[in-house]
Amino acid sequence: MKWPQHGSNPQYLFDALELPLPEQRIDFSANINPQGPPPILKENWSQLFAAVTDYPDPKGKELKEKLAEKEGLHTDQILLGNGGAEIISLVGRFLSGRRVVIVQPAFSEYEAACRVNGCNVDYHQLVPDRWEWRDLDLSNKLGRSDALFLCNPNNPTGVCYPKSVVAGLLKECEENECFLVIDEAFYDFLPDYDSLVPFINENPHLLIIRSMTKMFAIPGLRLGYLVGAPSMIRKLEALQPHWSINALALQAGEWCLESESFVRETRELIERERTRLFAFYQEKGFLVSPSSVNFYLLKDPSLKDQLPFFRFLLEKGMIPRHTMNFPGVEGGWLRFAIKGSRENSILMEAIAEWQNHRRSFL
Amino acid sequence: MKWPQHGSNPQYLFDALELPLPEQRIDFSANINPQGPPPILKENWSQLFAAVTDYPDPKGKELKEKLAEKEGLHTDQILLGNGGAEIISLVGRFLSGRRVVIVQPAFSEYEAACRVNGCNVDYHQLVPDRWEWRDLDLSNKLGRSDALFLCNPNNPTGVCYPKSVVAGLLKECEENECFLVIDEAFYDFLPDYDSLVPFINENPHLLIIRSMTKMFAIPGLRLGYLVGAPSMIRKLEALQPHWSINALALQAGEWCLESESFVRETRELIERERTRLFAFYQEKGFLVSPSSVNFYLLKDPSLKDQLPFFRFLLEKGMIPRHTMNFPGVEGGWLRFAIKGSRENSILMEAIAEWQNHRRSFL
Repeated sequence: MKWPQHGSNPQYLFDALELPLPEQRIDFSANINPQGPPPILKENWSQLFAAVTDYPDPKGKELKEKLAEKEGLHTDQILLGNGGAEIISLVGRFLSGRRVVIVQPAFSEYEAACRVNGCNVDYHQLVPDRWEWRDLDLSNKLGRSDALFLCNPNNPTGVCYPKSVVAGLLKECEENECFLVIDEAFYDFLPDYDSLVPFINENPHLLIIRSMTKMFAIPGLRLGYLVGAPSMIRKLEALQPHWSINALALQAGEWCLESESFVRETRELIERERTRLFAFYQEKGFLVSPSSVNFYLLKDPSLKDQLPFFRFLLEKGMIPRHTMNFPGVEGGWLRFAIKGSRENSILMEAIAEWQNHRRSFL
Repeated sequence: MKWPQHGSNPQYLFDALELPLPEQRIDFSANINPQGPPPILKENWSQLFAAVTDYPDPKGKELKEKLAEKEGLHTDQILLGNGGAEIISLVGRFLSGRRVVIVQPAFSEYEAACRVNGCNVDYHQLVPDRWEWRDLDLSNKLGRSDALFLCNPNNPTGVCYPKSVVAGLLKECEENECFLVIDEAFYDFLPDYDSLVPFINENPHLLIIRSMTKMFAIPGLRLGYLVGAPSMIRKLEALQPHWSINALALQAGEWCLESESFVRETRELIERERTRLFAFYQEKGFLVSPSSVNFYLLKDPSLKDQLPFFRFLLEKGMIPRHTMNFPGVEGGWLRFAIKGSRENSILMEAIAEWQNHRRSFL
């Protein structure tokens, strides 16, 4: 069977499993804000129609200026992207033919982008059930590598490695003239994020990738950015197609940056719901990854391969994300986005039902 | 002075010329449908908001199926792109390090995409005032080249080379195992287009690039496609970032394909206005390129360099496209989109005024 590469677009998952797509379904497979986009986007939606008929500003000047102001950067330290995925693809292309190490488990696009560009790919594997940071043998690998990819907060586990760990890695990478590529797609879900952006000014090998599609629930529009040294931004920009970021994403991005109270409310909602869900899982004897953000890994410890649990939920219209293509996880866990209160409650009911079903089955 | 690479986004042009941006202006620099997008897009705009919150279908299945049906193709012969510009960029990357020939003058992105990928770029130059097709020395060049780029109908001249010319080129390219990359971004403005698509089935070296942003006036959304052999489609798709075509473009694209009467009306409008404009230019003694589509080159034959004429129009708020980066044209002409009747009339008035101004000046 060929598992889909990513969450969302559930029809491909149901096709792969030869299951009918239920009419009533809740998609827990895409890690986006359960509140949907910030209200300003809906309020101004009719106004966005005008952006359809003009070419997008190829320099994205206004959005870059707003981002630079927010992050305390110069605009030449920012590259806008057609989603984080385009940025990862550009970085992979820049690293063409080089040796890279990926801290695993991680979002699968780093490896895909590196392999399509003929890189030699090695892993630094972190392990269940806590996915704690371990340096074990990493120094040796960095000495012979050109880039290290770190997803922090981590996708799929939701674990966030502290700034001290990242600072240590960065020092070692600089000594080895190795790029440190940190994907912070979910950083804005952290209640107490301590920014790495100031490191950019002193560390020419640091690249920070950000997505605006998760917190602002605009994956359909595609918008991300990279923060790095101006010389790197110029090199990556030269590889980018013209007008790569559409005009709606540029305008929506500006509105999203104004939506600060929306971000705070989202963090509070996620924290409240995570606490509620995790208490339920502990009571029921399920294992979860120690996530700090808006998704988590879940495991029924009575099963090695979670496939029967997965199928049970799919048939009920609850759609988790399979973990087959996350090295070190490979089907041993399921990933769930934290949705709104109602959806999470429905999920808990379904999981309680699964537990009864499984008991009667044993 | 650094001229902007493309039309549209007039602020960059006025900045380069150190001119204030007039409040009242008409942009003749972007070659898009003067009617704006098809009515179905505006009517269903509020419905499109839902597409923002879901990841786009990474396979663009439904749009591909509709395109395949329209063109009499299989879906595996179609690659969707984040605008024609992304497709050109992917083709350039595929041709990395090879020898290419570009029929000039032409859209500047072919050369840019080839150069950034280390190609050796040669020109096959066509010449004013008629830009007629000439084979002169092309056979020799094809014998030592890996790809030939042809923009047909041509941007910036609007000249369309007949199917017999293209069929001859295709034969020669196949014999030389050289790719023939035809950019048909403006094909749907031709009243009597005879499709090259059927050639795809017998010619593995033919690649046809199409844009949906010109006829359907959706440059802000970004949407284009490439038609080619399935093996080529797979190779180019592997180089494309995931979710490259946003969800709004996918849905809008389907609606555009349904808008057949809109396309017919647009062609009629363009033909009527072109006839009217060209009669005026002839009467006034200006030269135009023999365009068959929705834009044309214009020249005041009393000037070698059109810069004074260009500046005069810009100060009046009429924005033509400079031609500095079109080899063989380089400032000797100005390019104008054909707009609606009112805008074209205002342009003609301004040009009559320029003529009086120039006479009094001489």
